[in-house]
Amino acid sequence: MRAPSYLDYNATTPLDPRVREAMLPWLGDRFGNASSRHEYGRAARRAIDEARQRIAAAVGAHPTEVLFVSGGSEANNMFLKGAAACLLPGHLAVGATEHHSVLYPALQLASKGWQVRTIPVNGNGLIAAPDVGMTLAANQTSPAIISIMLANNESGVVQDIATLASEVKRSLPSAQVHSDAVQALGKIPLDFRQLNAAGVDALSITAHKIGGPQGAAALIVDKKVELEPLISGGSHERALRAGTENVAAIVGFGVAAELATAELSDRNNRLIYLRDYLEEQLQALGAVIFAAEAPRLSNTSYFSLAGQGRGIEGETMVTKLDRNGFALASGAACSSQRTDTGGSHVLAAMQVDNALLAGAMRVSLGAGNDKTDIDGFIAAMRKCISELAAMPSVNTFLNETITC
Amino acid sequence: MRAPSYLDYNATTPLDPRVREAMLPWLGDRFGNASSRHEYGRAARRAIDEARQRIAAAVGAHPTEVLFVSGGSEANNMFLKGAAACLLPGHLAVGATEHHSVLYPALQLASKGWQVRTIPVNGNGLIAAPDVGMTLAANQTSPAIISIMLANNESGVVQDIATLASEVKRSLPSAQVHSDAVQALGKIPLDFRQLNAAGVDALSITAHKIGGPQGAAALIVDKKVELEPLISGGSHERALRAGTENVAAIVGFGVAAELATAELSDRNNRLIYLRDYLEEQLQALGAVIFAAEAPRLSNTSYFSLAGQGRGIEGETMVTKLDRNGFALASGAACSSQRTDTGGSHVLAAMQVDNALLAGAMRVSLGAGNDKTDIDGFIAAMRKCISELAAMPSVNTFLNETITC
Repeated sequence: MRAPSYLDYNATTPLDPRVREAMLPWLGDRFGNASSRHEYGRAARRAIDEARQRIAAAVGAHPTEVLFVSGGSEANNMFLKGAAACLLPGHLAVGATEHHSVLYPALQLASKGWQVRTIPVNGNGLIAAPDVGMTLAANQTSPAIISIMLANNESGVVQDIATLASEVKRSLPSAQVHSDAVQALGKIPLDFRQLNAAGVDALSITAHKIGGPQGAAALIVDKKVELEPLISGGSHERALRAGTENVAAIVGFGVAAELATAELSDRNNRLIYLRDYLEEQLQALGAVIFAAEAPRLSNTSYFSLAGQGRGIEGETMVTKLDRNGFALASGAACSSQRTDTGGSHVLAAMQVDNALLAGAMRVSLGAGNDKTDIDGFIAAMRKCISELAAMPSVNTFLNETITC
Repeated sequence: MRAPSYLDYNATTPLDPRVREAMLPWLGDRFGNASSRHEYGRAARRAIDEARQRIAAAVGAHPTEVLFVSGGSEANNMFLKGAAACLLPGHLAVGATEHHSVLYPALQLASKGWQVRTIPVNGNGLIAAPDVGMTLAANQTSPAIISIMLANNESGVVQDIATLASEVKRSLPSAQVHSDAVQALGKIPLDFRQLNAAGVDALSITAHKIGGPQGAAALIVDKKVELEPLISGGSHERALRAGTENVAAIVGFGVAAELATAELSDRNNRLIYLRDYLEEQLQALGAVIFAAEAPRLSNTSYFSLAGQGRGIEGETMVTKLDRNGFALASGAACSSQRTDTGGSHVLAAMQVDNALLAGAMRVSLGAGNDKTDIDGFIAAMRKCISELAAMPSVNTFLNETITC
């Protein structure tokens, strides 16, 4: 049986075979605790140092600004909680469309005395610089932390983080600005030195979205930012993140970051072609493309077929498409990433109406996709839409059978 | 060139080839985000569920009591900080010989209003039940958290945690008892149900000490313990630990836990034989074996040659032995795991005198070792001792060349 077409690269990516090759020795004879002083340990330490250099080079940072952690969620939590722990409770502003690993820590900090505000987005998912300025205008005397994601996991919308960070720092030079760049890495050029000059103090990035392994990520952070470690217990990562390093995963992350950056331009050209080809046909099916007018990642199409009173639910379609050999996401990639009403908080923040929101589906393309995947996907979409049209009551039944 | 003999299994272990085999598909075609609802994601979720069951079975817990995290340090931090965050600041008692991933969080909690006490150990590294009782006697009205490691990473000393936990709960039924079982797993039988009945609320365990991969670990925790997530942002792990799961590492952890438990008895018989054989010869060289009279892990020898005024430094010997093809640890495995005076806090707590302490070396054996390793190691020891005797000033020079 043919493997299903994978159209969900924003959720996770297959391991690039070159990354896998680089990792395998570290899952074999070249094991070691990087803190050990003998040759096994020193070899592991050298491999981590090299990976740190590769990642620093890939994102325009200095190696000492790269702190390895276990994942993007940890990086986001580490910055928000770690920076907050070094300050008196002040003001925390987060984008309305942030990942839940930013929104939930913000809620936790709210219970610890932080005044949390959500920065609104427009209908295209974009934050306007005056809105960031307004968030801070009244708060010039108390500590402030701002977190705005660079590229959105659902919509692919890319914020102009340099301009937003500049606006923050112009209003309040002492504010600390973090950006979740998990979806940006490998999809748009990232230059921490440049962003840092504009006012960005820290970025979260992760390996498994760029052909690297699950289990390795980094917080790229300006050394002038004071952080309390989330996981303490040793001198690892400048005493900011304790724990035996996952050498194989870190080695893989290094190679993946280097490849993703080196091949970014070629890959993007291919992906933009595929995505435009996809969206042309989606529009022919009557789909509404979300954030179509915003700067977007080249690989992401977020759309809904629920317009025009058709009431086609995203989850139903995704379940049917899965059975037809196409793997994509409805709303967000994670079952947990939904509002209480079951819909995407990202689309809700974009003021998308409930009917359209219920139909949300995301195709996120990657290295393994080609035109055949798109043609097959569109054919399967047509088939599923016809089936749903013939059985209008099937939606409810199918939703109930989703297990997760 | 022959690979150095690895005698440092308490620092990390090579991946068991059977574990590696189980992991490889998840680093290949069977990728997926376990939160995705399509077949790639569901397959990843099933693999994680299966690993959770294997681990639960291996440690006598219910699968819902197993929370996956990235490492033992995270598990320790997660319990201490997560439990403390749900309580008013009260009393926190930790063993004097705990891992730094318990001691450092305790320091962080001290700065947040917790009264932190260290529970002393005797010359054999053991905590006496009355000392635990005394720690709590005066504190019957305020919240209390106690963390005592099951087996020590440096000395291999095994605490009678069931008796100690019973004593805690007898004095203060509301106290929460955690035990760092990272070094115990796979080396002594672990039965969480039994320990839980005695009063232990949570255990930390990790994969890379038992032939599993770096990057997967678990907090085994009684569901009645309230925890605030250290890494928040999603419904992963009962909403107590957010982040895309490291599927390959978790799968490897499951297999490693199952194998380590199934083969525990056979492996221990072999290791006890090897260790006794080693210690006989170490004693013939004039070594002092630390905690020789305490219940100890079958694989660990912690000793010093610095007695009788010989002044042989552990770090110097370990560096020389490394050059002679033998990988072991001085003091603790991690360069960070040292007191300000450069010595082991574990031995300091055991009231070992400074001269002897400076000579501390640890051999920790594992599946890959045999009698040849021991014979070669003893021969190399003799050679290094002679060299040092011939060049008494070399110690200082060698120490300066250690890079880490």
